[in-house]
Parts: sequence; C-alpha cells; structure tokens
Amino acid sequence: MHTFLVLNGPNLNTLGTREPSIYGNITLEQIYEKLRQQAAELGATVQCFQSNHEGALIDYIQQHSESASGIIINPGALTHYSIALRDALASVKIPTIEVHLSNIYARESFRHHSVIAPISRGQIAGLGWHGYLLALRALVDLVQEQVSQAR
Amino acid sequence: MHTFLVLNGPNLNTLGTREPSIYGNITLEQIYEKLRQQAAELGATVQCFQSNHEGALIDYIQQHSESASGIIINPGALTHYSIALRDALASVKIPTIEVHLSNIYARESFRHHSVIAPISRGQIAGLGWHGYLLALRALVDLVQEQVSQAR
Amino acid sequence: MHTFLVLNGPNLNTLGTREPSIYGNITLEQIYEKLRQQAAELGATVQCFQSNHEGALIDYIQQHSESASGIIINPGALTHYSIALRDALASVKIPTIEVHLSNIYARESFRHHSVIAPISRGQIAGLGWHGYLLALRALVDLVQEQVSQAR
Amino acid sequence: MHTFLVLNGPNLNTLGTREPSIYGNITLEQIYEKLRQQAAELGATVQCFQSNHEGALIDYIQQHSESASGIIINPGALTHYSIALRDALASVKIPTIEVHLSNIYARESFRHHSVIAPISRGQIAGLGWHGYLLALRALVDLVQEQVSQAR
Amino acid sequence: MHTFLVLNGPNLNTLGTREPSIYGNITLEQIYEKLRQQAAELGATVQCFQSNHEGALIDYIQQHSESASGIIINPGALTHYSIALRDALASVKIPTIEVHLSNIYARESFRHHSVIAPISRGQIAGLGWHGYLLALRALVDLVQEQVSQAR
Amino acid sequence: MHTFLVLNGPNLNTLGTREPSIYGNITLEQIYEKLRQQAAELGATVQCFQSNHEGALIDYIQQHSESASGIIINPGALTHYSIALRDALASVKIPTIEVHLSNIYARESFRHHSVIAPISRGQIAGLGWHGYLLALRALVDLVQEQVSQAR
Amino acid sequence: MHTFLVLNGPNLNTLGTREPSIYGNITLEQIYEKLRQQAAELGATVQCFQSNHEGALIDYIQQHSESASGIIINPGALTHYSIALRDALASVKIPTIEVHLSNIYARESFRHHSVIAPISRGQIAGLGWHGYLLALRALVDLVQEQVSQAR
Amino acid sequence: MHTFLVLNGPNLNTLGTREPSIYGNITLEQIYEKLRQQAAELGATVQCFQSNHEGALIDYIQQHSESASGIIINPGALTHYSIALRDALASVKIPTIEVHLSNIYARESFRHHSVIAPISRGQIAGLGWHGYLLALRALVDLVQEQVSQAR
Amino acid sequence: MHTFLVLNGPNLNTLGTREPSIYGNITLEQIYEKLRQQAAELGATVQCFQSNHEGALIDYIQQHSESASGIIINPGALTHYSIALRDALASVKIPTIEVHLSNIYARESFRHHSVIAPISRGQIAGLGWHGYLLALRALVDLVQEQVSQAR
Amino acid sequence: MHTFLVLNGPNLNTLGTREPSIYGNITLEQIYEKLRQQAAELGATVQCFQSNHEGALIDYIQQHSESASGIIINPGALTHYSIALRDALASVKIPTIEVHLSNIYARESFRHHSVIAPISRGQIAGLGWHGYLLALRALVDLVQEQVSQAR
Amino acid sequence: MHTFLVLNGPNLNTLGTREPSIYGNITLEQIYEKLRQQAAELGATVQCFQSNHEGALIDYIQQHSESASGIIINPGALTHYSIALRDALASVKIPTIEVHLSNIYARESFRHHSVIAPISRGQIAGLGWHGYLLALRALVDLVQEQVSQAR
Amino acid sequence: MHTFLVLNGPNLNTLGTREPSIYGNITLEQIYEKLRQQAAELGATVQCFQSNHEGALIDYIQQHSESASGIIINPGALTHYSIALRDALASVKIPTIEVHLSNIYARESFRHHSVIAPISRGQIAGLGWHGYLLALRALVDLVQEQVSQAR
Repeated sequence: MHTFLVLNGPNLNTLGTREPSIYGNITLEQIYEKLRQQAAELGATVQCFQSNHEGALIDYIQQHSESASGIIINPGALTHYSIALRDALASVKIPTIEVHLSNIYARESFRHHSVIAPISRGQIAGLGWHGYLLALRALVDLVQEQVSQAR
Repeated sequence: MHTFLVLNGPNLNTLGTREPSIYGNITLEQIYEKLRQQAAELGATVQCFQSNHEGALIDYIQQHSESASGIIINPGALTHYSIALRDALASVKIPTIEVHLSNIYARESFRHHSVIAPISRGQIAGLGWHGYLLALRALVDLVQEQVSQAR
Repeated sequence: MHTFLVLNGPNLNTLGTREPSIYGNITLEQIYEKLRQQAAELGATVQCFQSNHEGALIDYIQQHSESASGIIINPGALTHYSIALRDALASVKIPTIEVHLSNIYARESFRHHSVIAPISRGQIAGLGWHGYLLALRALVDLVQEQVSQAR
Repeated sequence: MHTFLVLNGPNLNTLGTREPSIYGNITLEQIYEKLRQQAAELGATVQCFQSNHEGALIDYIQQHSESASGIIINPGALTHYSIALRDALASVKIPTIEVHLSNIYARESFRHHSVIAPISRGQIAGLGWHGYLLALRALVDLVQEQVSQAR
Repeated sequence: MHTFLVLNGPNLNTLGTREPSIYGNITLEQIYEKLRQQAAELGATVQCFQSNHEGALIDYIQQHSESASGIIINPGALTHYSIALRDALASVKIPTIEVHLSNIYARESFRHHSVIAPISRGQIAGLGWHGYLLALRALVDLVQEQVSQAR
Repeated sequence: MHTFLVLNGPNLNTLGTREPSIYGNITLEQIYEKLRQQAAELGATVQCFQSNHEGALIDYIQQHSESASGIIINPGALTHYSIALRDALASVKIPTIEVHLSNIYARESFRHHSVIAPISRGQIAGLGWHGYLLALRALVDLVQEQVSQAR
Repeated sequence: MHTFLVLNGPNLNTLGTREPSIYGNITLEQIYEKLRQQAAELGATVQCFQSNHEGALIDYIQQHSESASGIIINPGALTHYSIALRDALASVKIPTIEVHLSNIYARESFRHHSVIAPISRGQIAGLGWHGYLLALRALVDLVQEQVSQAR
Repeated sequence: MHTFLVLNGPNLNTLGTREPSIYGNITLEQIYEKLRQQAAELGATVQCFQSNHEGALIDYIQQHSESASGIIINPGALTHYSIALRDALASVKIPTIEVHLSNIYARESFRHHSVIAPISRGQIAGLGWHGYLLALRALVDLVQEQVSQAR
Repeated sequence: MHTFLVLNGPNLNTLGTREPSIYGNITLEQIYEKLRQQAAELGATVQCFQSNHEGALIDYIQQHSESASGIIINPGALTHYSIALRDALASVKIPTIEVHLSNIYARESFRHHSVIAPISRGQIAGLGWHGYLLALRALVDLVQEQVSQAR
Repeated sequence: MHTFLVLNGPNLNTLGTREPSIYGNITLEQIYEKLRQQAAELGATVQCFQSNHEGALIDYIQQHSESASGIIINPGALTHYSIALRDALASVKIPTIEVHLSNIYARESFRHHSVIAPISRGQIAGLGWHGYLLALRALVDLVQEQVSQAR
Repeated sequence: MHTFLVLNGPNLNTLGTREPSIYGNITLEQIYEKLRQQAAELGATVQCFQSNHEGALIDYIQQHSESASGIIINPGALTHYSIALRDALASVKIPTIEVHLSNIYARESFRHHSVIAPISRGQIAGLGWHGYLLALRALVDLVQEQVSQAR
Repeated sequence: MHTFLVLNGPNLNTLGTREPSIYGNITLEQIYEKLRQQAAELGATVQCFQSNHEGALIDYIQQHSESASGIIINPGALTHYSIALRDALASVKIPTIEVHLSNIYARESFRHHSVIAPISRGQIAGLGWHGYLLALRALVDLVQEQVSQAR
C-alpha cells in the first residue's frame, strides 16, 4: 500500500479560522480528513504535516520520503523564495505535485513565480481543497503507471 | 445534465503521432474518449473542439458557452500571447480550467507565463492526459457547489 | 464621396450583450448605425467589418483599402501583439485612427502598449462609442485638408 | 451653461512660431479661438490657460475646477513625469480629456508613457488642433449623458 | 488595558554589542525597558519577542495576536524576502507598524524594498530606538480613534 | 528655542476638502495647529509652508534653513521625482524627516520609490496626521541628543 | 526527387505592389518562379503557399510536411510572436530555413527577436529575394549530406 | 557682437557657500565674473540667469533666445527629469552646451542620465568652473565656423 | 590554537547519499574528518555544524564566533536569499570564506547570485570537497598574516 | 574582377581540430579552398584572413577594403561585443555579409545578440561552411545588381 | 614643462578620409598639429598615439604615464566596453579627460554608456576637434591649480 | 610531470607597483616565484604568461594547452566581457581554474559577472596571491583524481 506525504507550509494551519471570506471555512484538519477518506478508497494512505518553519519542512522531507511514493505540497509563501525547499524536493526520487488553494496567477505579481514548480511533476492551482484530492488521485495514477511500465 | 466545452489550441491535433517521446502515444481523440466516459460516469457531457486558428477558438467560445456550464481549455502555444482568447474566456460567465499536458514551468522561460491564467478559475499542469480528467472532475464539483449554495 | 473602413477586432461582436456594466448596452450594430448617420451628414460613407480572426482583418485591409480614404480601427486585444495587423495597416497609404472604447491606460499594464499606435495617425481612447464618431469626423477633416493643400 | 477648462503645459505658448514644420503654423491663440467658436455652437464656454510652470497649472486647477464641468489638458512635456499634476487632476470630480497634438507613440520612447493617462477619462493623440475640438465635443456629450442619467 | 506585541527579527538580539558605531550602544533589552515605561505611561502593556527563526516569529504572531491590539515589528533582514511573515501579519486583524532602526533607503539597494510594508499600517525608519516609542504612541492613538469611532 | 520647518508639497493645501474618504477630514491648517500646540509643549516653534511649486519649496528651504534646527517635509508627489528638492534638502546641515499621510508602499508602484528618502534622516509613512506630530517629537529628541553629545 | 515547402506569412502577398521603395518591385509570384527554375536545375521541386492566417500556415505545415524534405519560411510579422507556428515547425522532422527579405536587425527593436529562429536549422536575412534561392540551395545540400551520411 | 545665455538651474545659487568641500569655494557670481571677462576677451557678451523654478528657466529661454547666439546651461538636478526644459531648448535654433561642475558619471546612478544631452550640441562635465569658460570658448568658435561656412 | 567554524546549510546533510552522480559519494561526515586531519596538521581545530534551519545557523554564528578565528560556510540554497544569514556573518569580526561544492556559475541562473559573497573575504566554488580544505588553508594563512602584521 | 575579403575572428583558426562533434571536421583552410574554387567559377577572387586580435581585424579592414567589393565576416565571439569592429565595417563603403557556422539563436542567450548585424547587409547563420559559399554567391549578385543599376 | 598624452582608440586613424559628412574633413594628424601648437602656446608638450588594439593602448598608458601630467583620451568604440582600458587609466595617478568628437548621447543607445567616464576627471563630448583643445586647456589649468595648492 | 599554464590578463603586470594599498606590495613575478616553488614541491611545473592583449592570451592558449594539464587564469578585466577568451578556454580539454585577487562580488556591480566562470572548473576569489597557490594545489589534486579513476 502506497503512502503519500501531504505537506503544508507557513500559515496554512490557520485555514478556516482566518480570512474565511478568501479561503473558505474549511480547516486544514478537515482537508486532511477528506484526503484520508479518498486515500482509503484508492487503497493508499496519507501522512500529513504542517509547519511554519522552512527547516522543519526540509527535515520532514529528508526523514520520510524514503518510505513514501509521492508528495503533495502546498508550500504557502515559501513557494516564491525557498530554494532550500526546492532542493530538498529535487533530491528525493518520488514525484511531487504542487497545490495552491487560490489561483496564484490572479493575485499579486510576486505570487506568479514559483521556485518549486520547475522541479515538480505537476501543479494544480485555484481549485480550493479539491486541488489536494485531485493531486492525490493523480499521484495514485502516476504510481500505477510506473508499476505497470516496470513489469 | 451539464455540458462542458473541451477546447484545444494549435498543434494539439497531432498529439500521439508527433514527438511521442515527449507527449506520449495517446491521441487527442483517445483523450476525448476518456473524457466522454468519465463525463458519463459523472452525469455530464463534453463537447470537444480543436483548432489551429485563434479566431476559430474565439468564435466557438462565443457560440457555445451560453449552453455550457464550464470550459476545459488547453490553449497550446496561444497560452503565452493570445490576449484575444483571454478576453473571449473572460467575457463568458462560466468557469474555465486551463490544462497543460507538460509542466510548462520546467520548459523554456517564455512558456512560464500564461496570459490565460489570471482569468481562469484554476490551472492543472504537468499531469499529461490525466489533467483533462481531473479538470472535468473539478468542474463538476464546482458546478454542484454553486447549485447547492444557490439553494 | 469618401469611403472609410471601420474595422473591429476580436470579441467586439459581443458588445452590448456581454459585460454591459463595463462596456455599456450599446451593440456594435448600433455603433455602425450611428457611424452611417454621421457619415451621411458629413457626405461620406462607412464600410464596417468585424472579425475574431487576425488573418481575416488583414485580408480585408488588403482588399478594401485601395478604394477607401481612411481607416477607423478598434483592434481589440490584437492591439497589444498583432504586428501582422500593424504591418498591414502600415503598408496602405491612407491614414488610420485607432479607437478604444475604454481607457486602456487605466487597465492591466499589458494593455498600456499598442503595437498599432506608432503607425497610426492618431489614437482616441476611453470615450466609449463617441470615439468612433470623433475618429470619423477627424478623418473627414484630415482628408479635406489634404485635398485643399494639394490644390 | 457649462464651462470647460482648457489647459496647456510648457512650451505650448510657442506653438506656430517655433518648429512649424512639425507642429504646423497654427498658434495657441488661434486654437483657443476655434474652441471658443465651437463652444458657442455647443452652448458652452471655454476658459483657457497656459503656463510653463507645473505649480501654476496645479494652482489653476485647484482654483477653477469647482466652477467647471470638465478639463481639456495638453500637459506638454509634463505628461511624462508630473505626478503632482496627475494628483491635482485626480482629486477634482470633473472628467479630464488628455490631448496631444502629435502622435506621442510614434516619437521617442520616453514620450510613450503618460502619467496623466491612467486618471484621465480619455486620450486623443496625433490629430493636431482637431484633437482639442474633438475633446470639447466629447466632454459636452459626456456631461449631457450624466445629466440625462441623473434624471 | 491594551497589549501590544513588539517583535524583532534576526540579529536584533545582538544590538548594542555588535557594530555599536552603526547601531549605537543601546541593547534590545534597554529598548524593551523604554517601551515598557512608555506603555505604562500610556496605560498599555507591551509583550516583547525576538527570534532568529522566521518560523518562530510566525508561530508567535499566530498564538498571541488574538489577545493583542497592535503589532510593532522590526523584521530585520526578513523585511526584504519573508513573504511568509507578511502573510502571517496580513491575516491578523490588528494593525502593524514596521520599524527600522536605520534609514533602509540610504543603504544597499536590496534593502530599499520591504515585502512587509504593503500590508503594514505604517512605517517608521531611520530614527533609531525612538522609532519603537513613536510606533507605540501611534498604535495607542490609532486604537483610541477606532474605539471613539465605534461609539 | 528651536524652530522647525514644516514643508508641504503640491496638492496638500486641499487636504480635508478633497477626497476625505481617503485622506480624512482634517485640513492642513488643523494639522499646523496641532503641530504648533505640540511644539509649544516641547518648547519649540514650527514654521509652516505649503506650495504647489517645486521651485518655491527650494527657495524656502534655502532662505529659512539657516535659522532652523530641523525640517519636517511631506513632499507630496514631488517625493517621486524632484531631485532638485532632494538636492536642496541634502545641502542644508539640519536633519530632515520625510512624512507621508498614507502608506505609499500600499499604493501604485510608482509611489513606492522616494528620491528624498536616501538623504533624509528618517521616514514616517501611513500614520496620517499623527506622522507630523511624531516627526516633530523625533526631531526635538534628535536635536537634544546632539546638544548633550556636544557637551 | 525532393520537394521543398516555401511558406510565406502575413502581408507577403502584397510584395512588389506595396512599398516598392523598401521591398523592391519583385512580386511573390516572381520569386516563386525563380525558385521553381532553380529547383528544376537542382533536381528538386518547390511547393509554395502564402497566407495572412497563422492557423492556415500551421494547417499547411501539418498536412504537407510528411511528403516534403525541407521548409523555407518567411513568417513575416509572425516571426516575432507566433509560438504556435514555432511549435508546428518544431514538431516536424524536416529542416527549416528562416528567410527575411530585409535585415531585421537593422529595423525596429521588436523585429530583432525571432521566436522561430531557435528551432530553425538556419537563418538568412537581408539579402532580398536572393535569400529564398540561397535557402533552397542550402536545403538541397543539407539533404544530400544526410543521405550520404546515412549510407 | 554675439550674446550668449548662461543659465543655471536649481540650487546652483548656493554655490560656494554650501558644501564647499565638494563644489569648491567659488560662488556663482564669481563664475559669472570670469565668464564676463573671458567674453570680453573673445569679443562677446554673456547674459546670466539662475532659478530654482523649472518654469522660470523655460520662460527665460523663450524670451531671450531670439537675440542670443548660443546657450550655456547647467540644469542642475533638472538635468535628469525636466523634459519640459529639454523641449524648450530643442525648439530654439541656437546651439546649447550642457555644463556640469562635477563628473556626473562618477556619482549616483540616477545622475548618469541626462534628458538634456540628446538635444545639446555638446556636453562638458567634471571640470568645475572651467567647464563654463570652455563652453563659452567652444560656442564662440562654433558660431564663427557657421559664419565662415555661410559666406 | 585557532578554532575555525565549518558551517553547512540546508540539504548538505544528505551529501553522498542523495544524487551521488552530481555531488559524489563523499559524505559530510567524511569531509569533516578530512578537515579535522588537515586542521591538526596546520595546528588548528575545526568545529562543524549543519542545519536545515536558517535561524539555527544564525544562532550558532552568534554563539560561537567570539571564540573562533574564522568561518568556512557552504550556505547551500540560503546562498541566494538569506540576507539574515548575511547580516549575521557581517556582524562578526572574523573572516568568512564561502565554499560551494559545484560551480554555481554553470548552473541555473538564480544560482549565479550570492547574497553572502559581498561580505565574505573570499569565495571558492566548483572544486568539490577540496574547496573546504583550501578554504581552511587560506584562513590559517590569513590569520597568521594578521598576527605577523600586528607585531 | 571583383575581390572579396573573407574575415574570421577569434578561435576560428582551430576549426576542424577542436570540438569536431559541434563544428564538424572541416578546417578553415578547407573552407578557404572551397571559397577560392567557387570564386573562380563566379569570376571573382577571395582574400582570406583570420586573427584572434580584434585590432588586427580592424587594421586589415582599413587596409584592404578600398580594393575590395565586399566583405564576408564570421566575427566569432567578437560578434557579441566588438563595437570597434562594427565601426570599422560601418565606415567602409562596401557591403558586409555576416556568417555564423552554427545557429547562434539556438545557443546561450548572450549569443543571440550581434552588434555587427545592424550594420551588415545581411546575415547567414546555422548552415555550416555552406554559409560562406552562399554569402559569396550573394555578394557577387549584389555587386552585379549595383553595376547594372548604375548603367 | 608638462607633457600630456593624447590617446585615440580604434578607427580614429581614418578620421577625415572616411564618412566626412559625419566627422568632418579634418584628419587625426591635423588635430595633432593643432594640439601641438596650442600646447606650445600654453608651455606644454603633447605625445600622441593611436591604435586599433585595446592591448596596445594599455601598454602605452603603462609605459608613458609615469613621465606625463595628464591624459586626453578618445577611446572610440572601446568607450563602451573596455573595462581593461578603464582599469589601466584608473591605476595611473594623473588625471584623464575623455573626449568624443560627436555627441554620443544623441546616437544609438549603446553609445550612451561609457565605462571610462566614472574614472575620468571630466568628459567633453560633441564639440568636434575643439574638444581636444579644450581638454588640453583644462588639463593645463588643473595641473597649475594642483601646483599652487601644494605650495 | 604535469605542466600548468598560469595566465594573467590586462594590467596584472603592474601588480605591486600600482595601487599597493588595494592589491598589496607583491609583484606578479613574486607570485610566479611562489608558484614555481610550490609546483616543485608538488612535482609539477608552471608556465607563466601575462598580456594586455586579449588576442595574445588566446594565441597562447591555443599554442600551449596541448602540452599542459590545466590552466590557472586571472583574466583581469577581460573576465567581464571577453567571450573570445571564454571560447578559447572552452575549446581546450584541460580544466581551468579562474582566480581573482580581490573579492569581485564586493566591488562595482559590473565586476560581479564573469563570462569565464560558466566554462571554468572552479573559481577562487578574494584570497589575494594565496588564490593562485590554492588553484595550483586544486589542479594537481584534480589531475591525480582523474588518473586514479582512469586506472
């Protein structure tokens, strides 16, 4: 059974409680719950982690990616400048899908550039919490394709 | 039953026959078939159109968006300069999801910028033909949310 | 009697029906009607054409500019990138006046630059449908000045 | 009866006497005369002012805009850097139309950018002294529309 | 009684001991003492925190802003790139005043840009430790204005 | 007794009467009154001057800075381009504090850059009329520090 | 016998009739005739096509490149922005030589950049109609080299 | 006998009294005296004017250039942004030589660009008050060359 | 006996185990061992520290630089954006040498710029683990030179 | 009989011996031989020169262009920065054709810009040694056209 | 008796014979003659050197600056890129005056920037051969001032 | 026994005699002597060459690199623009280490970019003459590694 890491960067822990008019009322824990349900349906498990610390996210990736099959990450504001996070993701062998709740291309211009995107397998933006579920579905499909190709 | 437009821009008609090492062996028609199947499962229909002509895509959007509930578009190279296509999509009232087969952020720098993205609801890139299916799923969910909110 | 071409680029055919809060309720056909009336008052005629196709606009300019005395063009989004349209207008010998319904300098920054402007005789922006009538009046004056100078 | 301010910036007082090959032989006073005539025909009056001093133009706007219904301004070179003039125009409640004798988009690149344009109602460029008359006509129309809407 | 958070970013803990010729001999603790005294005079309290860790500053803001009435922050070098810190400050409902000991606009060009400033209520720079006291005074005044307006 | 110059640039004379929703209802004269009161409390005097003319501001600085101990200046729009004003301020030996009513870093991008800031002692922005009072307080403190150091 | 496609973009159909002082008196048909003659001498054939429509050029490339050995293209103004045309040329397996009648590097700066050049085999500019003949000669040589290498 | 205008922009009236370590002890009046002496030796006269007002300099140029044979101007800070001053100088028929006391290319980068230079006959920078004398000498020579060519 | 700090930034702890084809098989611990041996030969000691946390590196520098004679730092990805790390290094009085395993100037363009370099004594890049040893040798020499100069 | 100069810049003397996988096995001397043969066929002669010294190329152009009818130049790396070489070529009255063996537009971005191109008659790039022969053919044609026009 | 070096860069040896319409009919030798005459009048000597080789100019500066009191240099095209020439001039202790025959600020934009200017004492541009004489006069004055100050 | 080329670009021949406060008192010959000694200790030889001529450096590289095992180069000012030198170094098969006496990243911004760096094996900057010795040591190690790997 495949395990997928679900990582969330700075300020995503306040989801649902701060600025609900923008980000909606759903909390990060509720998104985790939806992911766990869908993972179960797809025969997989998810391992979730959030931190406001760039270093803690890198530590986590280094410690858990060996036993995982893919990474779903919403890097929050680190999207735009954390080359260190990029390097951590680039050095693991499993695919990463970058998720953004809002359409970052419709916001301030400094949010249009992602230092993570060039080393990701793909990116899903603007689809709210659905983005996480779609990313999980995509990762499951990608892993199955690799397995069937390897046979 | 909701109808969704699936639009493809220049050169996407050669999918599967040209440069399979990059874009895979799947043809546009085969992706359409997968979309039709999934649409049926989700209780929806898709209406598919491809053109190498910017003007033809705009004509199509103007003529068919009234009777549709959402648009999935892979604008191909028009992504990067067709402000006319952007304006056409911006003036219709239904949501658009932009799809790219490859991770455009890992390619030449002129492909990193999309003039379509700021007026799209969301963007899915780098996930191959899965991107179309995920976009359809997302649109169905979005439309249902709107309906349930309206009640 | 002088004939003036009135050309409109992509999406202007939806004028009055889409986004009336921004562009007003007047349709392109109604603007044409006002132009025809004013042309009649000024002893001139107008020949109107709209297309979503850059190539069709160029074809039209090539085919009709020989028998015309001036061009009024609202290139729509092509304003910002169609060097081909610019070249077509630059190669005809009659004066062009560029018209924009909205004040393009108060909108997104990519709309501040016109590739058409440097080869136009003049530009009128932000005055709604009045802009077309003012442009027609200006062209009639310009043509009369040339005639009186040539004598 | 509506009064419209007609403001002209630095060096426009030398019109007709300096560089006639570029700007023509018409003097600023002659343009004022044409404006007065057309204003009379349209049932309005114009109040004209020219200065080489940025500060004097701002003083004038502050002192006379309360009793006026619109502003026609050719800011001359101040077009390109006088944010103070922009702020003065932005803070009055009547519409401004920016006029340029020459097509500024066909001249040196530093003349392509106007700091006044974003806060103007519209812009007319490249149509010589006709531009002033067209601007007056447009302002009269705009004011009448507002009146008829307000009823 | 209102409580105000006083936050200091990386390297500000060495104030007074390192590079006194530039930053003076005053230590951060001595500034805190001055703030506490002035807060007492103004009928308020301050809660002070310094960290070299971006994540720790964000954690602190999330945990303490609910019970506070305003934030005084000297983000140190994070001023120039920590969009995560910006997002944390932007999502709380109390006003932030950004303080810089030195005049950042007279230093290296990369210090001229603050990612924090656009979401701050105001900025005080170049006035040494006085800046903190002025910021506190301003926050007290702002809070009182809000209260009196709300009545 | 120390005298401080309080200078205000273009359009600040309309404060309180134009755009009160943005700048508040307080007039420049009322701010002057507050400054005079606070100056009296601090044992100092203020000398106030406003002009829409860059040259008049420079004349004033040259004529009055010899007998003054510091300058508070809100250059208005001149902030962004008047290198002449900068040079005038840079050549006097007394400290300048730049004040802005609004947070210029949260407005149009051309307002983010101040040509005055690099030669100012400090900058206070976004705190409304409080900014003037805080600047006066800071100047009084700075002057007293210099005196006590000189002893 | 090898067939080579000769493609011409927008406005090149007016060659010889418009702006002869710049582009000379030769018509596109006369260039085609010279190409046919030289092709015959070199034991090859040419297939010529011109369109003002970007989409039509792409359609043509997709439909005829399978049976051709090389492409000579003068994309006209599309040179500078048609990434769609670039993608069409990049996806065919035969070599492309880009031809420009005038020296695009001695014209307006926006003409210095070609989006086609990076995927072309080579480029010939500034040599008038000779450029087409030289390109044909080069393609014949290139094809023969490939054949002799393949043996 | 030829008359030459000697114009000086903002802050040059404080020469010799402010910042003597940078600009030396010589006053503007002393430079005028040297110019008058050298003019007498060369059989010419100079007419000197300084103002802190951009508009006053333009007024002066408009009023006195008709009766003069050349202009020596040190625009001070206006060098870098006064397009209005540039236009005033460009519209007179006599040659202008731009003088700078200091080497503007060795100072802050915003001082490296002169909007006046492109329309000047020549520029002399970095040679202190000698620059004015050299400019006068050059103008006398240039005028004599024109006279001898005209014969 | 001199002590030198050897600091390594994010992701360098995975050296030798991740991406050996790029960075080689040597681990960070093995490099530390080589450094300890060479330090012993040169009569010095090294104190080694790695962290994925920017803040932890700054804490370490603040706590240990007083008792050290120099710093060797490979900041990893922090090289390109951590102004906070730069400020920490800039405020200590001992020399820093920046080391990079790979030639950062031959990699992605965002890796060409180091915010650390301007405040370093020197930089060694592209020489693999040799770079650390060369840096140690250089620091020992620099310290000895200072001592001999001080005598 | 017309003589054409064939100039080659730095490093082109190593052609065929260094990096044959990129530039092929042909030596510069072999290209010269092909040029001499073709020149003979066309009734012309070529005079060939290579140098690694910018100054030597300029000396050569100054000394030999008087007796020549045209120049073929592959400036090598000087293409991108030698304004001195550009000036030398611009000051001679005979046409220059710039040749590049490789497609410089498909290489590093700093190779996309040629300071020579704007003053050349034309440019041929990416066609290997064929480029030289095509350039010779073009020059012969150009010279003949000029002769026949002059008659 | 003071000796001054007069250096001229690439292509200046063709002065008077090439492009006389731009640079006039005067040859470099004739300018040298004028300089020798004026030097004699001023009690000084000049030593003149021209080369098309950057390296030769640097060699000359290194070998002759010890025995000279100042340098007049017209670097020709090297003005815009020869940092090596700049470094050679910067390392000698005598003042340099940069001379340009034409007004480089009125030519192509790449000629507006001089890498030599920041390390020159002054610059004279646009005054033809007069510029050399004015520079000599200025150097003589500067040297005399230094002597009189040193007493 | 391995031979290493030690190349020095423009102005490095004046080392120790010019600007000793910046570059120290050591001469280039003294550095050569140190290199020869260390080379002897390491069982290698060095071959040293300096020139102010870009072309001479390229000639030297072409003529001597075949018999050498590595290159140490301090290109001086050519670092920043000599693409020709870059190409010469890139086309030889032996490794190059770029050395700079000073920390080029702490100097003028135009010195921050090296066109040589991307094709070098490594770079050592800011360590004075030590840099040459460290580079030699590194090259000896690199060559030995290659030999041991090849076995």
